[in-house]
Amino acid sequence: MPTIPDLPVLGEHDDPNSMLSKKFGREVANYFSGSPLNRLSFLRGDRDFLRQAFSYPSTAFLLMNNLDPLVRQDDPSHLAFATIADVVPLTGEDPFGKTEEEQIRDFDSADDKHPPVIVFLGVDDKAQLPSSRQVEEFAYKSFRGSPYFAVDVTPRGEGKVAVEARKLVERLKERGLEFHQTAGHRHMGLHAGQAAMYGHARALIDWNARNPFCAQCGQTTLSVHAGTKRACPPTDMAGGTVPHDRKPCATRGTVSNLSFPRTDPTVIMAVVSADGTKVLLGRQRRWPKFWYSTLAGFQEPGESIEEAVRREVWEESGIKVGRVVLHSSQPWPFPASLMIGAVGQALPGAEAETVFLGHDAELEDARWFGFDEVKLALAKGVSNLGESAPEGYVDGGLRLPPQTAIANQLIKAVVEGWWVSPRM
Amino acid sequence: MPTIPDLPVLGEHDDPNSMLSKKFGREVANYFSGSPLNRLSFLRGDRDFLRQAFSYPSTAFLLMNNLDPLVRQDDPSHLAFATIADVVPLTGEDPFGKTEEEQIRDFDSADDKHPPVIVFLGVDDKAQLPSSRQVEEFAYKSFRGSPYFAVDVTPRGEGKVAVEARKLVERLKERGLEFHQTAGHRHMGLHAGQAAMYGHARALIDWNARNPFCAQCGQTTLSVHAGTKRACPPTDMAGGTVPHDRKPCATRGTVSNLSFPRTDPTVIMAVVSADGTKVLLGRQRRWPKFWYSTLAGFQEPGESIEEAVRREVWEESGIKVGRVVLHSSQPWPFPASLMIGAVGQALPGAEAETVFLGHDAELEDARWFGFDEVKLALAKGVSNLGESAPEGYVDGGLRLPPQTAIANQLIKAVVEGWWVSPRM
Repeated sequence: MPTIPDLPVLGEHDDPNSMLSKKFGREVANYFSGSPLNRLSFLRGDRDFLRQAFSYPSTAFLLMNNLDPLVRQDDPSHLAFATIADVVPLTGEDPFGKTEEEQIRDFDSADDKHPPVIVFLGVDDKAQLPSSRQVEEFAYKSFRGSPYFAVDVTPRGEGKVAVEARKLVERLKERGLEFHQTAGHRHMGLHAGQAAMYGHARALIDWNARNPFCAQCGQTTLSVHAGTKRACPPTDMAGGTVPHDRKPCATRGTVSNLSFPRTDPTVIMAVVSADGTKVLLGRQRRWPKFWYSTLAGFQEPGESIEEAVRREVWEESGIKVGRVVLHSSQPWPFPASLMIGAVGQALPGAEAETVFLGHDAELEDARWFGFDEVKLALAKGVSNLGESAPEGYVDGGLRLPPQTAIANQLIKAVVEGWWVSPRM
Repeated sequence: MPTIPDLPVLGEHDDPNSMLSKKFGREVANYFSGSPLNRLSFLRGDRDFLRQAFSYPSTAFLLMNNLDPLVRQDDPSHLAFATIADVVPLTGEDPFGKTEEEQIRDFDSADDKHPPVIVFLGVDDKAQLPSSRQVEEFAYKSFRGSPYFAVDVTPRGEGKVAVEARKLVERLKERGLEFHQTAGHRHMGLHAGQAAMYGHARALIDWNARNPFCAQCGQTTLSVHAGTKRACPPTDMAGGTVPHDRKPCATRGTVSNLSFPRTDPTVIMAVVSADGTKVLLGRQRRWPKFWYSTLAGFQEPGESIEEAVRREVWEESGIKVGRVVLHSSQPWPFPASLMIGAVGQALPGAEAETVFLGHDAELEDARWFGFDEVKLALAKGVSNLGESAPEGYVDGGLRLPPQTAIANQLIKAVVEGWWVSPRM
């Protein structure tokens, strides 16, 4: 029987019994959201803040090795955190000692110490995580809460940092901690808020690793702004004491999107028939027998989300969709996707509702399913991909993704009539 | 009196009088959506299709010079299109003569002909544009409709292509056509479907121009897949006849997001007070007096859209938002933003609803406005930014963005009660 972890729990606005929810409706929160951290994004350029936060005794470090997060060997459903004593051999005592301007000014391509990427994740200002309860709360100006950073400890090459990284991995193992092998899995074993922290850290560490060069000019870039920006420095010390000019680059002296992390919006949609009685689902060849899910695809430049939904559904299934309404979102899958969930409604008429798979060869099958069959599958046929069907499932019945997948939430929304609304 | 162009017109699903809309609610369509083209994205790798579409007599070419689109001098609200005879001196007779594999295999960094970027935009399969009516309809397999391409004719340097580009610009001028100066404007003078085509073309031409190098390895890349992908070739002819190996790159032999266009999701939100009587609006210092709009900000890695809305509102205004529901989207502003519109509801209590501007210094002011004042402004105070207030506006009254801005649609949705819905 597969274990499906919790969905995120938000505050009172999400409580179905609260006055507000009763009066105004409810938000749908998906897995990989619900982080307990306040990102304090406007402090990422504040050196004093970063220095104090980095060195505070209760500050927690989320370590990643080849994008795998540190967990306890006996309970991989919770992240484990390292301390400043663990990371200093890699990061040095004072990795935020320079301002962003000083980092860029002193850029030295011959520096072979390869300091690891460090990402400021935020502060736990509601004391939701264990480290917040250990010592007196960290405070800076009006901000309080336990600081969290992520550090990339992947050993690369044979330099000093890589040697220290290998030693650290061994020390952690002796303490009962390990890097949770996540390759090929949906990473859905972590508890909800921790999954969100993991997604946040992973996205930024991976983005830094994928972008060591400037796409505009081809020269090396430098991680700044607490791991959330990469700058293309105008000069290079190149091992000497006098900076040399580098090739000009259009990303300097202006705000360029290339300096900032990339997020790839993706549309994922449950399509309901024009008469509101059936839902369109599709399947890929590599999925288990009887397993179907919602259609999905990448958002393209210069189209609205609603247009992307209509385009993808037509390309993959031949169905012509009219009205599209947006449902909720999920920051997944890695490396950088943001799934935007929608409900689309087919245009009326047999021609608009006839499945045709010949445009794009992505799906093995796409079919209309009546609400009753889908409701049964939501009750009896839900599991993680790659795990066996749950108890009570009757062979041959429809199988669907788990509650942690936004696809499941969209399918549920359709059969429960969420998309029928007296809107303008 | 400013001219505000049309909003996109969609099909019957968007008709407020249709049976479907009455029964199920309506989609909100924003400016920069509503393209008349079918992108046929799955044919971008089909050489036979691209060759035939490129050379068909009625095929239309949307030319861009420094990202400005070609229009008629006497009517810049409609795009003007060039013909194959116009573009062949720049593109050559057969720019799609090689498959993607052949293009990559034959990559030659010493090739100084610098062919312009050509983007396949799609086919007008509903005959909504003039060129569809000129000759017999283009057909390929089961697909019919007039093909549209975009070509970047910006003269760069002194090579053959740049010389031909300058000649072409002169010839077009003699025909009463010009490149519409768009810098600094909101580009909202174009009719709706044409604005969507322009946004589509501009996004891809700009993306190609911003990404001549591979961010993973720093080597030059090559535009393939009809302008929608950039490949990092494993070899380089380097002016000779034998290919030389280039440095290894992790984007090869796998699907890397770095090969595909970037879209930057942005959140934009109208926030309603907990009791549902007021809306939160903010203003930037450089805006005209009395002008306010919704708050907005970039989506960050590893957060849901709903979390990004809560984060941005708190960072910019101090207001604590509970429930967030998604409203609609708009693929703007350039170079690559996708605005995702939402309605958020403040948590109850004086502390959650007190404006505080001291976290992030982005806004000059943020305030709660009663619905009556906002309704008056929607009727009397709406104009394009940079244009004077409309007739009937009384000085000192609230001013708001035009209907073409998603901000306007969100504000309208809030005061009309769109966000109150009996959802689960």
